[in-house]
Amino acid sequence: MNKKIGIIGLGTVGEATLRSLYKYSSLIEKRTSLKVEVAKVCDARIQKRKFVSQFSIPFTTNPYDLINDPHIDIIVELIGGIKLAKNYVISALKKGKDVVTANKALLAESGKNIFSLAKKLKRSIGFEASVCGAIPLIRSISEGLVGCEVKKFYGILNGTANYILCKMHKERISFSSALREAQMKGFVEKRSQLDIEGIDTLHKLAILSYLCFGVWPSLSKVYVEGISKVSPLDVMYAEELSYRIKLLAIAKRRKSKLDLRVHPTLIPQDHPISQVSLAFNALWVEASPAGELLFYGEGAGGAPTSSSVISDIVSISFAKPRFVKEVLNIYLESINSLQSRYYIRFMALDKPGVLAKISKILASLNISIASVTQKERRKLRYVPIVMLTHEAKESSIRKALSKIDELSVIKGPSQFIRIEDL
Amino acid sequence: MNKKIGIIGLGTVGEATLRSLYKYSSLIEKRTSLKVEVAKVCDARIQKRKFVSQFSIPFTTNPYDLINDPHIDIIVELIGGIKLAKNYVISALKKGKDVVTANKALLAESGKNIFSLAKKLKRSIGFEASVCGAIPLIRSISEGLVGCEVKKFYGILNGTANYILCKMHKERISFSSALREAQMKGFVEKRSQLDIEGIDTLHKLAILSYLCFGVWPSLSKVYVEGISKVSPLDVMYAEELSYRIKLLAIAKRRKSKLDLRVHPTLIPQDHPISQVSLAFNALWVEASPAGELLFYGEGAGGAPTSSSVISDIVSISFAKPRFVKEVLNIYLESINSLQSRYYIRFMALDKPGVLAKISKILASLNISIASVTQKERRKLRYVPIVMLTHEAKESSIRKALSKIDELSVIKGPSQFIRIEDL
Repeated sequence: MNKKIGIIGLGTVGEATLRSLYKYSSLIEKRTSLKVEVAKVCDARIQKRKFVSQFSIPFTTNPYDLINDPHIDIIVELIGGIKLAKNYVISALKKGKDVVTANKALLAESGKNIFSLAKKLKRSIGFEASVCGAIPLIRSISEGLVGCEVKKFYGILNGTANYILCKMHKERISFSSALREAQMKGFVEKRSQLDIEGIDTLHKLAILSYLCFGVWPSLSKVYVEGISKVSPLDVMYAEELSYRIKLLAIAKRRKSKLDLRVHPTLIPQDHPISQVSLAFNALWVEASPAGELLFYGEGAGGAPTSSSVISDIVSISFAKPRFVKEVLNIYLESINSLQSRYYIRFMALDKPGVLAKISKILASLNISIASVTQKERRKLRYVPIVMLTHEAKESSIRKALSKIDELSVIKGPSQFIRIEDL
Repeated sequence: MNKKIGIIGLGTVGEATLRSLYKYSSLIEKRTSLKVEVAKVCDARIQKRKFVSQFSIPFTTNPYDLINDPHIDIIVELIGGIKLAKNYVISALKKGKDVVTANKALLAESGKNIFSLAKKLKRSIGFEASVCGAIPLIRSISEGLVGCEVKKFYGILNGTANYILCKMHKERISFSSALREAQMKGFVEKRSQLDIEGIDTLHKLAILSYLCFGVWPSLSKVYVEGISKVSPLDVMYAEELSYRIKLLAIAKRRKSKLDLRVHPTLIPQDHPISQVSLAFNALWVEASPAGELLFYGEGAGGAPTSSSVISDIVSISFAKPRFVKEVLNIYLESINSLQSRYYIRFMALDKPGVLAKISKILASLNISIASVTQKERRKLRYVPIVMLTHEAKESSIRKALSKIDELSVIKGPSQFIRIEDL
C-alpha cells in the first residue's frame, strides 16, 4: 500500500519527522508493507527550502498547495499555535484528508469541534505526538485500556517545568537560577511561560481527560498553578519530610464528579513518579481492572516526537483510529471544594506565642495539623515554620492563610502546596 | 457491531475476563459501538459450570463445542500449557476464527508456526496478555514503535522472581525464606520452577524479541540463569556498591548480532527499573528515534490480565493486528562471547597472600579489577571477598573462576553476577 503525506511546518518536530521518515521508511515498509511517501512539504519560512532539497521533496510556502493537492492522503500539521493550525486542519478534513497533529494547544482549545467535524466527515485525526512526545500514551489509553474505567491519573507532562524543579532539588538553587540554566541549555522554548505557568500541562491534561473520561473540560474551569512561586526553602523542607515537589496534572473521577487540576504537588519520594528526572515525562494511571500503570519517556524533542507522528501516519493508513465517545454526565469539581492534605510554610517572628496564634486560627477552621517543623531559631527575626495538615478543605486553608497573613508576627503571603499521598 | 466470543479455560485469568466483560461491556459498547457477547465458555473441570451459570452463559467441558460453533468469531484461549492449547489454537484458526491468547509458553515455543499459519489463513492472533499482564506493551511496541529501531531492552518480566528478590533486599532473608513467603502469599504458582529458574522470563523475552527484532529465537540457544543461587550476602554487597539485583530479560542488537539473555543482574540502584517493586513488571526500551521508554504495571493476576485480553478482543474486532515481519539476517550471540562487567564473590581463607593469588589468575586472563571489598576479618576462616571487574569476556571469567576455585584457600564455587550499567 502507498500513502502520500504532506507536512506543514518545519520546526524541530517537522524537520525530525522528515529525517526519521527518510531513515526508517524502508524499515516501515518491511514491517507493514506500507510505503509512506512525503509528497510535499510546507513552511512559511522560504529559507527552509534548502533543508528540504536534500530529500528531493517539493517545497512550498503555501499550505494550501498541500491541502488542495488531490494526491495527498494525510496532512501532518506541525506548525503549533492555534489560529492558522486550526484553519489548515479543518480545511484538510473538508478536503477529505486524514490529519496527524502534534498540536496540544489546538486540541485542548478546539478538540471537541475538530473531532466532531472529523467524525461527521468520516476522517481520522492522529494525535499521539500531542501528549508526552515519544510515549505511546494515546494508543495505550484509547486502545489498551478500552475495557477499563480510569479512576485517576497523575502526569508529569512538561519537561521544562520538571527540569527546573529537578535542578532546584539537586542543586538547591532558586527558581530563577534554574530557569536561566534551562534557557541556556535550550530546554525552554520561546513561550516558556506556557511551560512554567502550567498552561502546557493544562493542554495535555485536557486531551487526557477526553481520552480517559470522554470529557473535554472547559479550560478556564480547571485550576492551574505554575511553579514560579516554589522556593528553595519549600524544596528543602519537602525533601526533609520525604517528599518531592513536582508539577502534576491530576485527574480523579468519583462517580459523576471529575477533579482536574494542575499545580505543584508534594509527592512521596519513593513513588516511581518522584524519580522522573529532568526533561522526561511520565503518566501514572490507576484503572479498573488494569490496576496501576506507569508510562515514562522523552516528552519532547524532535526525534522522539517524530516517532509518535510516524506511528500515527501508519495507524491511520491501516484503519481509522477509534476514539472515546463523549460522556456528558460528568461534572468538573471546583478547586474550592477540594479536600486535600497541605504543606504550609509561614515566615514568622521567632518569639513566644506565635505558634499558638497560628494554631488557633487553623483550629477555628477545622484544619488539623499532622506535623510542625521549625528548625531555625533567630530571636525576633522571621524564620520558616512548616506544617503538614491532615485532610482539609481548600476553601478553609485559603481563609486560614489570609487571616494568618494579617497577623503582625507573620510576613506574608504564606506558602501552601497540596500533597498527594499517591 | 456484534462479536461473539468463546472462552476456553476458566483459571484466574479466564474467570476474571468473564467478570470484567460482564462489568464493562456496556462501557466498551458506549466507547466503540462494539457489542462483545460471550457465546460459550469451556473448562475441563465440570465444577466450573456453577461459576459460569451466574452469567447465564452456556458452559461445556468440550472445547470443540466452541471451536466448531460457526457463530463464534473469536476464540479466547486461557488454559495455559502447550500441547492442548496448541491444538485448540490451530483448530480455531483453521475454522476461520481469530484467536486471543495469554499463553506465553505456547507462543515462545510455537509462535513462529502459529503466526505463519494465521497469516496464511488471514486470521489474527491477539497476545497482549501474554507479556506483562496489564501493560499495553505489545501494541506499544508493534504499533507505537512501528517506525523505530529497537537498540536494546531490559525487562523485569516475572513478578514472582521480582517479589522474592525484593523481599531478600528489604528483609535481608535467604532465597528459600523469601520463596516460602511468596508461596504463602499465593504469589507463586504451582509450577514455580518456571518463575524462579527464569523460564517464564525466557518465554516473554522470546515474544519481545519477535516484536522488537522480528526474530523468534531458538529457546535452547538463549542463556538462562535463575535466581536460586543469589545469596543474602550478594544482595547486601550489591546494595553497598549502590546496585540492586534483578532478574532481567536482556536484549541488545548490534547490527546483525542479537544478544539475548536472562539472568540475575546488578543494576544501578537509582535507575527507574531498580525501583520496580514486589510483583510488578517493567520494560525499559531504548529505540531510535523514540529514545528511552519505560512501561510499568501489574504483570500478572486475573483482573489486570483481563484488561489486556479484552483490549485484544476489541482490536481484533475492528481490524487485523499487524505484526512485524520476520527478519532473517540476525544472529544470536552465544553467552561465551559476551563482554560485560561482573560482580564476583569468593569465599576465601583470611590469611596473607590470598588476594595476590586471586589477582594473579584474573590478570593472566586479562580481567581487570575495578574495586575490591573485604569487610569481615576472621583469621584462618572463610570470609567473602567481593570484586567488581571492568569489562571482561564471559569465557575468561568462567575460566578464571574455575581456576580460582581449585586454590586450597578458596571454598568454591565462587559466585559471579553480571552487571548492566544501563
